[in-house]
Amino acid sequence: MTGRNIIWGTIFVLIFLPNSLLASESPGTALELPSILWGLIIILLVAKLGGHFMEKLHQPAVLGELLFGIIIGNLYLFGATFIEPLKDDRTIEVLAELGVIILLFEVGLETSVHEMKKVGMTSTLVALFGIIAPFFLGWGVSAIFMPEASIYVHIFIGATLTATSVGITARVLKDIGKLQVRESKIILGAAVIDDILGLIILAVVVGIIDTANMGGGGTNYIDILVILAKALGFIIAALLIGNWVIPRLFKVSAQIKGSGVLLTTALLVCFLLAVLAEKIGLAAIVGAFAAGLILDKLQYRSFTDRGEHSLEELVAPIGTFLTPIFFVKMGMMVDLRTFANVDILLFAAVMTAAAIVGKQACSLAVWDRQTNRWAVGLGMIPRGEVGLIFAGIGAKLAIGGTPVVSAGAYSAVVIMVIITTLVTPPALKYSLLRDRKKITEE
Amino acid sequence: MTGRNIIWGTIFVLIFLPNSLLASESPGTALELPSILWGLIIILLVAKLGGHFMEKLHQPAVLGELLFGIIIGNLYLFGATFIEPLKDDRTIEVLAELGVIILLFEVGLETSVHEMKKVGMTSTLVALFGIIAPFFLGWGVSAIFMPEASIYVHIFIGATLTATSVGITARVLKDIGKLQVRESKIILGAAVIDDILGLIILAVVVGIIDTANMGGGGTNYIDILVILAKALGFIIAALLIGNWVIPRLFKVSAQIKGSGVLLTTALLVCFLLAVLAEKIGLAAIVGAFAAGLILDKLQYRSFTDRGEHSLEELVAPIGTFLTPIFFVKMGMMVDLRTFANVDILLFAAVMTAAAIVGKQACSLAVWDRQTNRWAVGLGMIPRGEVGLIFAGIGAKLAIGGTPVVSAGAYSAVVIMVIITTLVTPPALKYSLLRDRKKITEE
Repeated sequence: MTGRNIIWGTIFVLIFLPNSLLASESPGTALELPSILWGLIIILLVAKLGGHFMEKLHQPAVLGELLFGIIIGNLYLFGATFIEPLKDDRTIEVLAELGVIILLFEVGLETSVHEMKKVGMTSTLVALFGIIAPFFLGWGVSAIFMPEASIYVHIFIGATLTATSVGITARVLKDIGKLQVRESKIILGAAVIDDILGLIILAVVVGIIDTANMGGGGTNYIDILVILAKALGFIIAALLIGNWVIPRLFKVSAQIKGSGVLLTTALLVCFLLAVLAEKIGLAAIVGAFAAGLILDKLQYRSFTDRGEHSLEELVAPIGTFLTPIFFVKMGMMVDLRTFANVDILLFAAVMTAAAIVGKQACSLAVWDRQTNRWAVGLGMIPRGEVGLIFAGIGAKLAIGGTPVVSAGAYSAVVIMVIITTLVTPPALKYSLLRDRKKITEE
Repeated sequence: MTGRNIIWGTIFVLIFLPNSLLASESPGTALELPSILWGLIIILLVAKLGGHFMEKLHQPAVLGELLFGIIIGNLYLFGATFIEPLKDDRTIEVLAELGVIILLFEVGLETSVHEMKKVGMTSTLVALFGIIAPFFLGWGVSAIFMPEASIYVHIFIGATLTATSVGITARVLKDIGKLQVRESKIILGAAVIDDILGLIILAVVVGIIDTANMGGGGTNYIDILVILAKALGFIIAALLIGNWVIPRLFKVSAQIKGSGVLLTTALLVCFLLAVLAEKIGLAAIVGAFAAGLILDKLQYRSFTDRGEHSLEELVAPIGTFLTPIFFVKMGMMVDLRTFANVDILLFAAVMTAAAIVGKQACSLAVWDRQTNRWAVGLGMIPRGEVGLIFAGIGAKLAIGGTPVVSAGAYSAVVIMVIITTLVTPPALKYSLLRDRKKITEE
């Protein structure tokens, strides 16, 4: 298939082209309405064209949004700087974040708590395997490339490779209409557990380094217990809200006069769980996914019985508007100059390989022969914000005056995030659709 | 009806309670995602509760959103300042502005160019009558309250009362399901023409004052011609886009692979006309309304034939999410301390009376006996951003060192905007529904 060749060629070229992904933590600008409207016009246009181009090549639309985002985000290399204000704008950023929250909410709506429970054990194992393998592989890569560095540096680099970022995978599964397969549920469940484990690892690693620095006793156990208690509290709160609050909420809201009550109630639950997740240190999208999960058609039957659309149908147009903003912006934030240093590129290539190969350990956690275990391993590949947050914290931490994560290592992490993000859509689509072919052939 | 009594009572109390509406032009803050999510939770909750409360009282939901917005916006008077950051946040502001753009787009979608042409002559007359009467009444009020002031001050105050802000009226017509009646079309058409005339008046008045200040020759004719040319250009561009571009655009976009193409294409047309309108000095909502007007079901039949939802259905959920943000924020920006000065209150009360009575001249422009001419006059009452923009420009203009619009006069304009906004929903609903009763009785 020439389509796939072009994609792989493009990715290949991207890797060997000309140092920082994702917005720096500058205060950010705040554009006026006309500029925002122009920005939205450009972003939505680019999203649809990129999506169309990739679907023609039998790739998921999201890959096109990312690649076309990279193109417009790097036009400045050719002197066209009109896209630059959009990169730092806080409003565009919030719209993008709302976009990925709505995406995971939609994905949650299409999944039920019951179905997730069925894959619970497998998801837990997938999450554990998918954290242990990349951690030790990352440690090893760091030890080889920076033999003079402290052991804590290696531990930190290992930790940076652990957490899966589920946004891309969720979008691919949605693009190719595969949210209902068992593999998708395992991945989504594992991503939630992964996020909680990521928090714990960060606390442990930072605790170890602080202890090493201070030379004092390592009492980070309390931190870990607090994180565990918060994560457990969140899950219990979500389940309580699901079983006890939501049915009562819909009973009350069905009495509310006015239009759009069903959708607004659902959005309130989504935003509330997203903000709670964020407050306890989890990703907002984990909260949004949980919100979608606990909202069930049966609970709002009194609305649909009156002829209102289902929540899936009501949320979809909001996703159509906002979700592409997230992926195009993600592409826009890729600075191709990151790829300019050969030493860093080599380090990044090996780190990326460790990140990709490491997550294939996930497939070992899937014992069920009926399940496409490769798809699970591929779906767990993308690294995102969590990896960058780890690297950012490491860049601020220092041992004996040198930062734990050097500028070069940070760039390598950035490249690893870009490549794991771009590699997943075609690989996951190929794996899941090849699987279907096999099934129809049998 | 006790419901209406409560509303009128509330409005009465509001008038006689404790100096500035709508955000100052400070750079504005940019909140982080969790704060934005909390803000959206509060705003959406307040919107639905306010809407419910008002619908129970047989009032349009929008009045509840405004009043509950005023309540939370003034909680700071009781020491609760947690709402304050939301008032200046640029992201919330953009979301609100997108909300009213989507509202007018929806209203435009429910109306056709053909229907607007049928009321074109009447709308033009309504717009003209509705500008001339408030202008001279405002002049008179200013002359009575500020006899020592220059004639240019009176001209300026008169000009401030001219432009109708159609957002509130459009929302009330939508709330009560009356967008399809002839009165609604006359009001919407008049509001567009009104906006263009408002621009011209502003140019003329500022030109006259500049000339008076400089003592030079008054060559503002070119400015006026430029504005006329731009407005004409916009209308021609919109019609060209409607007749020529849109059918071709949909033909192309029907070939685009991916989901959400119909909605995205429509949003692109909406944002493009909104930004064009804004660029030439018109309100963005005029552009959004024009975009809705020129999009016609027949043009995108290839999408609906494949079983996709109509644009009305696709845009509605986005409106459900974003539109209440505009009206709650509008309420939040009302500072009840504005109402604390008795002299200003008296001036404001008479100015408001002039603003309301003045627009009733609109009903004289409706010659058709079948039409509820009072509803047209009532629908034209709300003043909004345009009046405040006029007052803001006047505050910066000076004649002989004193500002054309004094701080007191500015406060009075602010109060006039608040009251005309709050008075319209109940009055318009009463007028249009009483009318139906008359018709069913006939």
